[in-house]
Amino acid sequence: MNYRFSDRVLALKPSAIREIFKYASNPEVISLSAGNPAPEALPVEKIQQFSAKILKERPIEVLQYSVTEGYTPLRRHLTGYLKDQHRIGRSFDDILITSGAQQVMDLAAKSLLNEGDTVLCEAPSFIGALNTFRSYRARLRGIPMEPDGMSMEGLEQALKEEKNVKFIYTIPNFQNPTGITMSAVKRRRMYELAKKYGVLILEDNPYGDLRFAGEPIEAVKSLDEDGIVLYAGTFSKVISPGIRVGYAVAPQPIIQKMVVCKQGEDVHTNIWSQMLCYELMTHCDFDAHLQHLHDVYRKKAKVATDALDGYLMPKVTYLPIQGGLFFWCTLPDGIDMMDFCRQAVLRKVCVVPGNAFLTDESQPCSSFRINYTTPTDDKLVRGIQILGALAEDVIH
Amino acid sequence: MNYRFSDRVLALKPSAIREIFKYASNPEVISLSAGNPAPEALPVEKIQQFSAKILKERPIEVLQYSVTEGYTPLRRHLTGYLKDQHRIGRSFDDILITSGAQQVMDLAAKSLLNEGDTVLCEAPSFIGALNTFRSYRARLRGIPMEPDGMSMEGLEQALKEEKNVKFIYTIPNFQNPTGITMSAVKRRRMYELAKKYGVLILEDNPYGDLRFAGEPIEAVKSLDEDGIVLYAGTFSKVISPGIRVGYAVAPQPIIQKMVVCKQGEDVHTNIWSQMLCYELMTHCDFDAHLQHLHDVYRKKAKVATDALDGYLMPKVTYLPIQGGLFFWCTLPDGIDMMDFCRQAVLRKVCVVPGNAFLTDESQPCSSFRINYTTPTDDKLVRGIQILGALAEDVIH
Repeated sequence: MNYRFSDRVLALKPSAIREIFKYASNPEVISLSAGNPAPEALPVEKIQQFSAKILKERPIEVLQYSVTEGYTPLRRHLTGYLKDQHRIGRSFDDILITSGAQQVMDLAAKSLLNEGDTVLCEAPSFIGALNTFRSYRARLRGIPMEPDGMSMEGLEQALKEEKNVKFIYTIPNFQNPTGITMSAVKRRRMYELAKKYGVLILEDNPYGDLRFAGEPIEAVKSLDEDGIVLYAGTFSKVISPGIRVGYAVAPQPIIQKMVVCKQGEDVHTNIWSQMLCYELMTHCDFDAHLQHLHDVYRKKAKVATDALDGYLMPKVTYLPIQGGLFFWCTLPDGIDMMDFCRQAVLRKVCVVPGNAFLTDESQPCSSFRINYTTPTDDKLVRGIQILGALAEDVIH
Repeated sequence: MNYRFSDRVLALKPSAIREIFKYASNPEVISLSAGNPAPEALPVEKIQQFSAKILKERPIEVLQYSVTEGYTPLRRHLTGYLKDQHRIGRSFDDILITSGAQQVMDLAAKSLLNEGDTVLCEAPSFIGALNTFRSYRARLRGIPMEPDGMSMEGLEQALKEEKNVKFIYTIPNFQNPTGITMSAVKRRRMYELAKKYGVLILEDNPYGDLRFAGEPIEAVKSLDEDGIVLYAGTFSKVISPGIRVGYAVAPQPIIQKMVVCKQGEDVHTNIWSQMLCYELMTHCDFDAHLQHLHDVYRKKAKVATDALDGYLMPKVTYLPIQGGLFFWCTLPDGIDMMDFCRQAVLRKVCVVPGNAFLTDESQPCSSFRINYTTPTDDKLVRGIQILGALAEDVIH
């Protein structure tokens, strides 16, 4: 049969970088291309213990249908926690528990975007979110990244030029893929511009709690007195990605539409994992747990930094980081980035070519992304060493 | 701010039946309006045991990111099981694990439906699926139900008249809400008609394994030699709904598009629950478990049937069932069904007005749906008794 698909999925082209990822599953290949938390950061024992507890004490609640909005004690606790710790959430806001932050992107897009509406995003940005926006046939316009975050001149120019902007998509902390953190000044400026031009901000903050150095900067959502910021959080990086629990904090009318959409997508998020997050936040020292994660990542990032300094610099440069999962490495002018990544794979090291994160993959890009949290320290160093040897061979 | 939502969510109107459901959460109200499995049917001890096992033996696998297609051992086992037990799946098919069967509806709709495309469905049908199709701005056309399933004359007429039919949506076993099972003859006819008119069939089978009497009838998918049937299964009714695990078996090109859509929706389904399903299917006697469910539901359905016969018949009639979760009750001509349901709520019994399941809720309907599996036997009988007293009062 000749299947007739929807226009929206016909528009989703297979990515040019897939050929590289095919190799990443080969166990001989050192993968620096993932976005996984470090295995040693997963609170395995606590999860074993709390899982046994909830399955013993409240098995029917874990196993029956539940409400779309999410497990009420978790919603209530998170609301207080985000308000107290991060000044996130006002009386006009509500909270929705989702199946990972990816679902926040989907539900926001589904609720807000008509075909042809524009989303302004950082260039480069998280490919998973961009693909979700594409699946609703949005037009993506990338705003160049600077060392302190999205260019505000670029943003204002785009807001002036584009007719149907629905929202600005930003990852202000330890951005994926660049690792860049937006300055407080730019956060305020972005908020003012959004307000002035009557568009929303979708603030995606998966890595904010993974700051192991420097001072935290308040979320864009913490400035939101006007109900224009939709905030996406997740437990993927601070508890576990496999449990698929994220959340959205946004003005009630938006959450209401997202709830209707979620009902039609998966009815509700797995209850066991929502209860686990609640237990971990309330029945153990969650701050101490975050502190432990910072120690793990600080140490691992140091291993990576030493290797990058020793083997890649100065031929290949990178941006220093204070948190998050990624390093953004840049090749000198005249070196073909895709060719470099292909050759790295032949030498059994897999990184992500930077153009994968652009709104238009065919644009030139001389950077690639390295993840330092998934491999063991040995493999991490060995992988960077191999990239260094490759750089020696091809960069003169 | 004046939020500008997408056209697709603006089209999703709040249902007229919400006013009735508001009362269902009142603990004094006997709810016969749910669609939950019986609490005593949930395999609590086995889940406690297998959960402890997988968290002990493979914690990192449970907690890390996984692949969108689903947990490979579960996909492999299910493929064999469905083939051996139900003749479902051919070499051109593939399997995708989803976050409940609701997500199959969503991914199928997202992959296949453009705005204005038509879905042919049973009238009445499952409101959750209809709302998902509506969220992609599909046109729904209901085909009348007969005691042996969808009217085939009605179906062929619709296939002749409608221009953009993408698929026929059917729940062939113990349909929600009518409890009707489609005959083998009609299943074959539906398959032939779909083939003749070049449309797909989306076969939703949540209740097929809950047959406690009579002989099973083979799935429409078991006839599929042409790659035109998309089959949706779920563990919600045979293991647990709260764990949110369903699956789709469909031709590879369709599954490929659904995988891309799922990646953008929730990356993958919670791994813990996928592993639990695998353990329950392979490390204990799954047939004996299903047999136990049949015993539970046969007994409970007998309690309901006795009460319906004793208190509601003949003023309110119902269709006898051989499985599933629901009874479909019909009021005599001249009695206002919505008013009956409203008065039932005032007497603290909640049922679902039948028009909720129509493609156009404003159409006349003289039936309502009763769920017999969620309440205790005592509450079930008491609820039906109250409905009987109401019938005595309003039907003369």
